[in-house]
Amino acid sequence: MIAEKMKPYVKNNSAIRMMFEEGNRLRGIYGAENVFDFSLGNPSVPAPDCVRQAIIELVNDTEPTVLHGYMSNAGFEDVRQAIADSLNRRFGTAFAAKNLIMTVGAASGLNVALKTILNPGEEVIVFAPYFLEYGAYVKNYDGKLVEISPDTATFQPNLQEFEEKITPNTRAVIVNTPHNPTGVVYSEETIKKLAAIMEAKQKEYGTVIYLISDEPYRELAYDGVQVPYLTKYYDNTIVGYSYSKSLSLPGERIGYLVIPDEADGSQEMITAAAIANRTIGSVNAPSLIQKVIAKCVDAEVDVAAYDKNRLALYNGLKDLGFECIKPEGAFYLFVKSPVADEKEFCEAGKKYNILMVPGSSFACPGYVRLAYCVSYDTIINSLPQFAKLAKEFEIA
Amino acid sequence: MIAEKMKPYVKNNSAIRMMFEEGNRLRGIYGAENVFDFSLGNPSVPAPDCVRQAIIELVNDTEPTVLHGYMSNAGFEDVRQAIADSLNRRFGTAFAAKNLIMTVGAASGLNVALKTILNPGEEVIVFAPYFLEYGAYVKNYDGKLVEISPDTATFQPNLQEFEEKITPNTRAVIVNTPHNPTGVVYSEETIKKLAAIMEAKQKEYGTVIYLISDEPYRELAYDGVQVPYLTKYYDNTIVGYSYSKSLSLPGERIGYLVIPDEADGSQEMITAAAIANRTIGSVNAPSLIQKVIAKCVDAEVDVAAYDKNRLALYNGLKDLGFECIKPEGAFYLFVKSPVADEKEFCEAGKKYNILMVPGSSFACPGYVRLAYCVSYDTIINSLPQFAKLAKEFEIA
Repeated sequence: MIAEKMKPYVKNNSAIRMMFEEGNRLRGIYGAENVFDFSLGNPSVPAPDCVRQAIIELVNDTEPTVLHGYMSNAGFEDVRQAIADSLNRRFGTAFAAKNLIMTVGAASGLNVALKTILNPGEEVIVFAPYFLEYGAYVKNYDGKLVEISPDTATFQPNLQEFEEKITPNTRAVIVNTPHNPTGVVYSEETIKKLAAIMEAKQKEYGTVIYLISDEPYRELAYDGVQVPYLTKYYDNTIVGYSYSKSLSLPGERIGYLVIPDEADGSQEMITAAAIANRTIGSVNAPSLIQKVIAKCVDAEVDVAAYDKNRLALYNGLKDLGFECIKPEGAFYLFVKSPVADEKEFCEAGKKYNILMVPGSSFACPGYVRLAYCVSYDTIINSLPQFAKLAKEFEIA
Repeated sequence: MIAEKMKPYVKNNSAIRMMFEEGNRLRGIYGAENVFDFSLGNPSVPAPDCVRQAIIELVNDTEPTVLHGYMSNAGFEDVRQAIADSLNRRFGTAFAAKNLIMTVGAASGLNVALKTILNPGEEVIVFAPYFLEYGAYVKNYDGKLVEISPDTATFQPNLQEFEEKITPNTRAVIVNTPHNPTGVVYSEETIKKLAAIMEAKQKEYGTVIYLISDEPYRELAYDGVQVPYLTKYYDNTIVGYSYSKSLSLPGERIGYLVIPDEADGSQEMITAAAIANRTIGSVNAPSLIQKVIAKCVDAEVDVAAYDKNRLALYNGLKDLGFECIKPEGAFYLFVKSPVADEKEFCEAGKKYNILMVPGSSFACPGYVRLAYCVSYDTIINSLPQFAKLAKEFEIA
């Protein structure tokens, strides 16, 4: 009875979500403290108290018909201005309120961006490993997803293959840095090379190729690493941001798009994006939380807690003999499976109550993703279990 | 630079929204109290205080990683159960939590429903006048919108034309009662006839035709009129609800779909709808507001305030000689234009600072929509201006 296009999704219902159910099952049997669930990117660090305070102030001090009312499809102008000001302060950009469109999280923002620019059959390039939902978003507009194979030595984008796969039909490129699932941050050098390739291809083909920067993990960076702001390197950049991780508000569905003046057709795109926000059914980003963002625009979650987890898990697994690139951002470790079929490894992990997501769920088999947005205790207590798993696979 | 499909939208950017800008312009010149803006369906009655209290309790008493965290794509189970219980109490239905999918308002809910069931080229029937965004939603899934012409005597659906226009390719029918823009409530007799026609056509063609009930105005009904609950009359009904009007939370984007067990392929549809909620980019309905709904599930806005407005405006305009069907629900009056081209009438209204939406924006030219979700003073003070307008058009 369902649409043909939905059938494959129902059949392969997201592996991550199925893992979530498995986690609940194991917790029911063994107790939550004895299950080491590294499967879901649900922030473990609470929202900063600024959020709670802002919510209470807003509901006590703001006229409810305004606080909970409709506004422009692009969002409250004061909220967009506050975010633009913050970005300009931090990154030396020159955005105005009009360059921002508040969205129902980054997932909705990416949909708005793709609906705004993508014609059926046009290509969108992604770098493996990547968040598989990109494929669903591109299909929503009948676009064609083009994958670049992973550079498993560094997990920086494979720029040679990228250059070869750009065609006159390439409409957009999605990058995600800090990166899910590897934790890699694309270096400034990488960004410059990527931008140069795209500039050259635009010239060669006489086309416009948008760079869509999906950056929900921007604020989660460690060891003082810098996360380049992409609009400064490539004019045709659209930024998709989310507060899901930076303020630990994933359930609230709040984020924004930036469409800078430098982007080709910027004015028309801004108008179209606000309309797309409406017609995909979001209408506008949730109103109360928009106002909260304006009050907490420079607030931060406790990134040090994630960093502590990162080092404990990374060092712990390295000591056990696992292979893994050291993440500089986000809250994921992308660990090499000791056997080619990483699903076998994931299955084995369940015997020790360890839940991991197979790399195949990110178009990168042979690896597993561990989300370390869990309690520090979970990490420490998981290490003896990982030791058993290492022993089973005769590692080290 | 934008997608071809977006170009017509940008060109004909929603007349209602343009009116919104015009309202701001006039308010800037004449002062808010001298502009009679009947153009926007933005509730004027504040959310019940239950909402404010629930928000404060929740942020003070609930672990922030839960309150603002991810949950199942269908929404928090306790919230869905609380709504199902409330519906069952009120309407004698037998819904469980699993029959509900929390959505980013009704607009997103309709998109989820259509994405779940609609194949390219399949037909969706709507009754003029209707909310023009339905057309955009149907196009999102490459469906074909089929319009039934209005019965301007009663603004109940034209069932004869409806029966004629159902084809083997008809996938869904959208109804909206209480109705935007006419305020009409479909009677039980109408619903029974409509259901009988659909049953017969399903049998004749061996197809499944879903009835999508878009009902954000369910709670706004006057004079004791009953609004039939459609799942009780037709098995293949999908309900799309929103709290935008019932709790005056339009900016918060909170609503739900009901997919009853009686619907054909119910289980598969429920799974697909939760996935569609994710892949269209909503992921889930905003989390804090979901929890607020559970706490305020039987709260109501002050419907009497709308009723007072309704009677004042309806009686005032009738006394001036305008022709209009008496609305039994929602917060709109659909007034016959004294000239065939209602846009001319709307333009003339602006001279008296009266803003009205042309019926063409609802596929029903020759009429104008007045949204009476404004202050009572606005209504009373508008009547002398309407008198001038009546004089200009030589009414009465």
